Amino acid sequence: MDFEKTIKNAYAESVEGERFGDTEEELLSLQKHIRSCKRIVVPNRNTVKTKAINEVLTKFNLPSAEHLCIHTNSADLSRTPAITKALMALDTCDCDLVIARGRLGVPGSGSLLVIMDKKGRILSAATSPSHILHGKKVEDAVRDEITHALLRIGFMVVE
Amino acid sequence: MDFEKTIKNAYAESVEGERFGDTEEELLSLQKHIRSCKRIVVPNRNTVKTKAINEVLTKFNLPSAEHLCIHTNSADLSRTPAITKALMALDTCDCDLVIARGRLGVPGSGSLLVIMDKKGRILSAATSPSHILHGKKVEDAVRDEITHALLRIGFMVVE
Amino acid sequence: MDFEKTIKNAYAESVEGERFGDTEEELLSLQKHIRSCKRIVVPNRNTVKTKAINEVLTKFNLPSAEHLCIHTNSADLSRTPAITKALMALDTCDCDLVIARGRLGVPGSGSLLVIMDKKGRILSAATSPSHILHGKKVEDAVRDEITHALLRIGFMVVE
Amino acid sequence: MDFEKTIKNAYAESVEGERFGDTEEELLSLQKHIRSCKRIVVPNRNTVKTKAINEVLTKFNLPSAEHLCIHTNSADLSRTPAITKALMALDTCDCDLVIARGRLGVPGSGSLLVIMDKKGRILSAATSPSHILHGKKVEDAVRDEITHALLRIGFMVVE
Repeated sequence: MDFEKTIKNAYAESVEGERFGDTEEELLSLQKHIRSCKRIVVPNRNTVKTKAINEVLTKFNLPSAEHLCIHTNSADLSRTPAITKALMALDTCDCDLVIARGRLGVPGSGSLLVIMDKKGRILSAATSPSHILHGKKVEDAVRDEITHALLRIGFMVVE
Repeated sequence: MDFEKTIKNAYAESVEGERFGDTEEELLSLQKHIRSCKRIVVPNRNTVKTKAINEVLTKFNLPSAEHLCIHTNSADLSRTPAITKALMALDTCDCDLVIARGRLGVPGSGSLLVIMDKKGRILSAATSPSHILHGKKVEDAVRDEITHALLRIGFMVVE
Repeated sequence: MDFEKTIKNAYAESVEGERFGDTEEELLSLQKHIRSCKRIVVPNRNTVKTKAINEVLTKFNLPSAEHLCIHTNSADLSRTPAITKALMALDTCDCDLVIARGRLGVPGSGSLLVIMDKKGRILSAATSPSHILHGKKVEDAVRDEITHALLRIGFMVVE
Repeated sequence: MDFEKTIKNAYAESVEGERFGDTEEELLSLQKHIRSCKRIVVPNRNTVKTKAINEVLTKFNLPSAEHLCIHTNSADLSRTPAITKALMALDTCDCDLVIARGRLGVPGSGSLLVIMDKKGRILSAATSPSHILHGKKVEDAVRDEITHALLRIGFMVVE
C-alpha cells in the first residue's frame, strides 16, 4: 500500500471516530516511505550537523544526506523555526527528504530535529533541551536526536 | 523583562546574524512566563491525560490544569495534530496556557505533547514513540512527556 | 455571545456535519470582536502603509492603528509571508489586533493584507496582484485592500 | 530557470535586503510552473465546484481538474480551513496541483480559493465575502474566485 493510501485510510478512521492510534502497518508504510527516498538534504550554514547525521544514517542502513547551504537565520523569526527551516530547504531544491535541526518554538524552547518528506509532511522528530542546559557538543546532540527520531518510528540499527 | 521584549531582542539578534542559541536570561523569562499563567487547559475527550498532567504539574509547583472537553478527532486530519489540538483549545476558550497531546505528524509518527501560550506560541514539547512500540499505559507516557517537556526548559521538581 | 463561544458553536456544527456556511450572528460577533480591540498595530519598515490603513479605519469608525517598526524581510522566506509578518508583530508586542500586508505565498504570488487578532486567528483578508501587474501606488493598493477586507465581513463606511 | 531556482534567488534577495517586490521573471516562472502541472485535483464533497473551476480553466487554456472526494468538515476546525483542505488533498493523493475552496479563517471570515502545488506552496488565491453578504450561487462565486486567482498572477483568457 502506498503512503498516500495509508494516510487516506487513517483520515477516514478519524472521520468515523474509529481511530485507535498508530498501527503496525502504518509504521511499516512510513519506514518504507523513508527507505524509498533517494535525495536527502540537511539545510544549514556549515557541515557539522550533516556529518553527524550521516554517521547515524549509515548505522541504520539509510542513504546519506547531502549538505544544503542556505541562510537559515530568518527561520528563527518564525513560530516553528526547525519546521520553517525544513520548508525553506524544500522550497529551494528538489529532494525526497529533509532533515532539519533548529529551535523548537520561542527563544528558550530548545531544539527540534525534524524529518520531513517532499510534500512537507512531518515524519518524525526529536527534541533536545537548550544547549546551556545539556552542555553537549552540537554534533553529539544532533547524533542523539537523529538516532532517537529514527528509533521512535521503529527503525533499527543494522549490525 | 517581559516575554515579548525577550522575543523582540532574540529576533533582532537573528536579523543581525548575532544569535548564538538560547540564553539563560531567555530560559528564565520563559519559566516566568509559564509561572505567571493562571488558567491552564488540557483539551481532550476524557480526563485520563489531565489527571496525569496535574500530578506532574504539582511536583513542579505549577498550578493545576483543567480539563477542556472538545472533539479532537479532526485534528488528526491536519499536518501537525498535536499543535492543531492546542490551537483548537485556544480558539474556543479563554486561557493562559494549553497543554495538548496528540500525534506529531503523519499517521505512524508517534505522539507529541506541546505547551502553548495564549498567543499560540510553542513554549516546550516532548515526543513519544507510537504506543505499539513503547507499550506504556497512556497515563504513564503522558506523565513522562510532561515531565520531560518541563525539565528541558529548566524547570525542576520541588521537594 | 463572546467570540470564543461563537467559534465553539461553529466547530460543533462542523463535527456534527451540520455546518451550512457563515451565519449573520457569526458576522455580528466577528464585527463586535474587532470593534472591541483597543490596540491595533501595523508591522512595517516605514509608515506609508499605516497612514493609508488609518485613513480607511477612520471612515469605518474604527480606532486608528499604530505603526510597529520591525524587520520584516525574513517573513519573505516563509510560506505565507503576510501571515508570518502578522505573527511576528504578535510575538513581539502586546496588542489586540494586527493588520499586516505582505506577499501571499511564493515569489510572484502578489500580496495579501491580513487582519489577525491577539490569539493569532485570521479575521479577514484581501489580495492584490503583483505590483508589476496593477501598477498602483502602494498606498492606493493598501487602501483598496483594507477597504475590501472590512467590507467583505460586513463593515460599512460611516457617513 | 526552474521554479526552485527562482525561489532560491528571491530568498537570497530578501536575506540581502535587496528585494523590491515580484518581478516579471518570477511571474513567468510561476505561470510556467502551473502550466507544467498534469494532474490537478479539487477536493470536495460534491462536484459543483469542480465543474465551475473547469469551465474557467478551459478558458485559460489550462488542463482540467479532477474531483477528489474527501471528507472536508474537519478542515473547518483548523485556523486556515481552505489551506488545510488543500493540504488534506495533497496528503492523500498524488497530484501536481490542488485548487481548494473553503473558509478563509474564523467562522464569519468568508471564503478563500487557494491554488497550491505538490510541495504545499501557495501559488495564488482569491477571497469572497460570506455567502450571506454576496448572495451569489456557489458556482458563480467559485467561477469568479478562480478567474480572479488566475488573472492576478498574469494568466489571460485565451480567445
